[in-house]
This record gives sequence, structure tokens and C-alpha cells, in this order.
Amino acid sequence: MSVHVSSPLTVAFQGARGAFSEQACRQLLGEDGVELKPLERFVDVFEAVASGEADRAVIPVENTLAGSVHENYDHLLNFRLPILAETRVRIVHNLIGRPEAGFERITRAISHPVALGQCLTFFKQNRGIRAESHYDTGGSVKTIMEGQDPTVAAIASSAAAELYGAKILRPAIEDNHENFTRFVLLAREAPASPPDGPGQLKASIAFVTKNEAGALFKCVAAFALRDITLTKIESRPLRGRPWEYMFYLDFLGDLREARCKNAMNHLGEMTELLAVLGCYRSAEQPETV
Amino acid sequence: MSVHVSSPLTVAFQGARGAFSEQACRQLLGEDGVELKPLERFVDVFEAVASGEADRAVIPVENTLAGSVHENYDHLLNFRLPILAETRVRIVHNLIGRPEAGFERITRAISHPVALGQCLTFFKQNRGIRAESHYDTGGSVKTIMEGQDPTVAAIASSAAAELYGAKILRPAIEDNHENFTRFVLLAREAPASPPDGPGQLKASIAFVTKNEAGALFKCVAAFALRDITLTKIESRPLRGRPWEYMFYLDFLGDLREARCKNAMNHLGEMTELLAVLGCYRSAEQPETV
Repeated sequence: MSVHVSSPLTVAFQGARGAFSEQACRQLLGEDGVELKPLERFVDVFEAVASGEADRAVIPVENTLAGSVHENYDHLLNFRLPILAETRVRIVHNLIGRPEAGFERITRAISHPVALGQCLTFFKQNRGIRAESHYDTGGSVKTIMEGQDPTVAAIASSAAAELYGAKILRPAIEDNHENFTRFVLLAREAPASPPDGPGQLKASIAFVTKNEAGALFKCVAAFALRDITLTKIESRPLRGRPWEYMFYLDFLGDLREARCKNAMNHLGEMTELLAVLGCYRSAEQPETV
Repeated sequence: MSVHVSSPLTVAFQGARGAFSEQACRQLLGEDGVELKPLERFVDVFEAVASGEADRAVIPVENTLAGSVHENYDHLLNFRLPILAETRVRIVHNLIGRPEAGFERITRAISHPVALGQCLTFFKQNRGIRAESHYDTGGSVKTIMEGQDPTVAAIASSAAAELYGAKILRPAIEDNHENFTRFVLLAREAPASPPDGPGQLKASIAFVTKNEAGALFKCVAAFALRDITLTKIESRPLRGRPWEYMFYLDFLGDLREARCKNAMNHLGEMTELLAVLGCYRSAEQPETV
């Protein structure tokens, strides 16, 4: 998807320049007419769009290895910023050094804790390199380039290495190469209709069922009885309410269509809370549905 | 639940002595007749039980903030070690120093990347303290006590502080206090029948649906039509098979009962893979079901 506007679109994301969120931003909005606004925490990113400081936000919602980013689902519900689009980014972690650095002399590697936790085999095989936490993957490359020490490396994307003029010392050091993160694009308000483009329309919702036997079955029925395909379902225990659950659900369909409207009305009869997080184009082409 | 045996029961867990897994182990098996076997990686823990080096394993499967531990679900399916019991541990992270340490002099804090990632507010408010990754929470306390440097602190449980004779400098520094991890107890073979005790019987299963519309609805129906209550459901995309999903599902019931057997047979008709991960006593009392 590419958005064309006359004045630059300010896009907030968590992390520093060169973060995987920036790559997601490029995939979602292209290179032109985009002004990047890197921020330290996810809540800062949501606040930037809510307050009008930024026009769009790009945030991760799930990773194939680490699962759903519950914090961002909480923010989606609290801020109610609608999802406009989604994209998937392959996460490749590289050991990155200063231009004059050599792999044999590296004694410390800095990066975001999640990235360090996805490179445990590398650290096991290279006991001379100590892992150290940094607030961001992209920011760790910036930090080593601002410093003077060729024995300190960063772990980040190849885009971050290129952006800051650093050198890749060891490519793809992540434990598992099937590592993808799904990012979504947010705005303050949803467009009147989802943009045209390839990909089927898809909706993301969250709901809390009434605490009764068979509650989930009845909710899933609202979609199945109308031949609507689900692409994600996840239960999450509600804090302080044992045996009650929040559900995250994605389904293929257009919320303006009668069958989707009916399914949502039907679901509303059976839920205590029901929130539409967005209706947008799917980033994947289903093989069969 | 407490298990009584004549020879000590060797229990493997990931991390060093004082890890949250050790606390889970105490909750599950008590103090007596238990020999702890701390190991570095989750896969080592599964291998220890599979090879007979250990009698039991205690592993985390989900956290209220970080979600499901997908790696351990993969190991559960690959090793097929049955779940015997479950427990929940409240995760409290403390800043822990050497006995002679003072908070004002701390410049570095070491811990597991996940623990560091759950104390971001603390690090934001204490810019003079650098976060550094360590392979384990409990092990980080051991490391500072083996060293000589009173400016290095660890982040771990109060049990770890006590075990190694270290001092808590700041208690409960985690960002979110509603932080609980669910642990399960594994053995090489399931007992002939689940042990007596409080708590309803519960089963954990994993399955892959056939790739067709309404597949999940039909699977959930196998339980709902028999009034069986679900306590967890989660979809996980299958690697390399777009639009196909693995589901993790927990339900209340005894697998020896006719209605559960029938539900499982019914589910078997509609799934490509169906695995029982265990049938055990629930750690929680439902308010209503």
C-alpha cells in the first residue's frame, strides 16, 4: 500500500532509526512523503497519534516465535486508534560492528532484550562475547557508531547497519530463521472505506464473553454460520477475573457487508465488551479459505 | 500437590538455583525428597527427562504479559512428555545487590532478557544503571555474589536473594504487578490415572485443523455439544503453510470419562494432527463454568 499526500505524513514507531518497525513503515507507506518519528516506548507512539503530534503509527502485534504483543493489544483497546493496514517483516538479526572492527576482537554485543533472547545459540557458541541490553535494535547500531570502541558490536537489521554506515560481522545469527513479525498501521480515525488494493479485506476485533459454558462456541458460531473465515483467535485471561477471558479474533470480510454486520450484531448479543480494532487489507493471499 | 517417593526425585528446570522455575518446583513437589537439576536451555530440560537423567521437569508455558512460550509448546509436541500438574507463580522482580552494596552506587544490573524487558520503567527512572543480559534471573544473583563488585546488581526473585545471601536493594521493580507465569510438571510417562487432590481435572491438547472454512467452529463444537468448558484457546500460524494453524486448547474434564473420549474422537475426525499434552488437576478453582 502506498499513500500519496502533499504534506509529509509523520509516522511514529517504537525504537530508533533502523528498527524493524522502520522497515515495516517502508513496506506500508513507501519512501516518499514520510517523516519518521522514532519514540522510546509503545505508549509514546500511541500518545503521539492520539494527540495529533503524528499522523500514523506503526506497531508490532505478533511474532511467530514470541507470540502476541499483549501490551500493544491493551493500547489498541485503550486508545482506540483504528488499524488501516498490516504487513509482515522477516526478522533477521546480524552482528554489526564499527567499520574498523573485526569479529575476533568483539567482547560485548548490545541490543534489545528480545533480540538478545533470539540469539542464544550464537552467545552459547561465542562465550567471549557478553550480551548487554539496549532499548532498541536500531539504536544499538547508532550507539556503537557514536562511540569509539571497536570491541563493542550491535545486533540489528542490515538496514540499520547501512543507515549508520556500520559493518555486518556475522549475518543472520538468530536461533530460528522462521522469525516474522506482523506490524499494523494506525491513524486517529478510520477512513470512510478501506483502501483499494490487493489482498482480501480483513477485520480485527476484541471481545469479552459472558462467563458461561459454551460462550466461545456461540461467539465462533456467529462467524461460522455465515461462512466467515477466522484467521486468528487467542484467549487471554482477564486480570483479577478468574475464568473470564478477552479474545482477539481476526476474520476475512468487509465490515460494510451485510453478513459481517449481522455477525457483529449477533456477537454483540453474547459479549460484555466488543471492540472493532480495524478493517483493512490482508497482507497475505490465502491459498484456500 | 505433593509426591512422596523413597529415593529422591530428580527435577530438571531451566535456569540456575533461585529461578522462578525453582519456586514453581517447590509449589508442585514441596521441599522433601527433591533433587534439583538446573540446566541452561529449555531443550536440555526436555532431553534430561527423555533420557532418564531426570525424573521430572518443570517448565513455563505462558505468562500473563508475554503470552505463550511457543518454544516449550514445540518441545511438548516433539518430546511428548506428558503434563502431570500445573501451578501459577507471581513474578516479582527485585533489584538485588551484594551484602555491602548500596543502591546509589549501582551502575549495572544483570538479568535474563525477559526480566530486563519487564523493568523498563525502572531503567527509565534510573538512567545511571545499565541493563545487561544474563542467561538466568537466579543465576544473575549467583554471578554478583561470586564476583567482588558492589556496583553490579542482579534482578531476580526474593528467593534467589535469600539463597545466595544477597540483599534486596529495591523490591518489586517490575513494570506491571499483574505478572504471573503458569508452569507445568512433566514426566517421561503419564500415570495410569491423574492424582487425587483439589482442583478440577483439566486436559491440554494441540491440534491442526484441516484447511477448510468453518474448521475451528467444528472443532470447538466437539466440546460445546458435550457441555465441556474451554479454559484456553490459541491459534498459531504453521510455518511454511500459509493459512493453516496449530491450535492449543485446554478444557475442564477427565479424559477417562465417556464425554471427553467422545469429544476427542469427534475432534480426531476433523483434524490432521491431534496430540494430548496431558490430563491433570487445575491449579485454579473456577467461579462458574
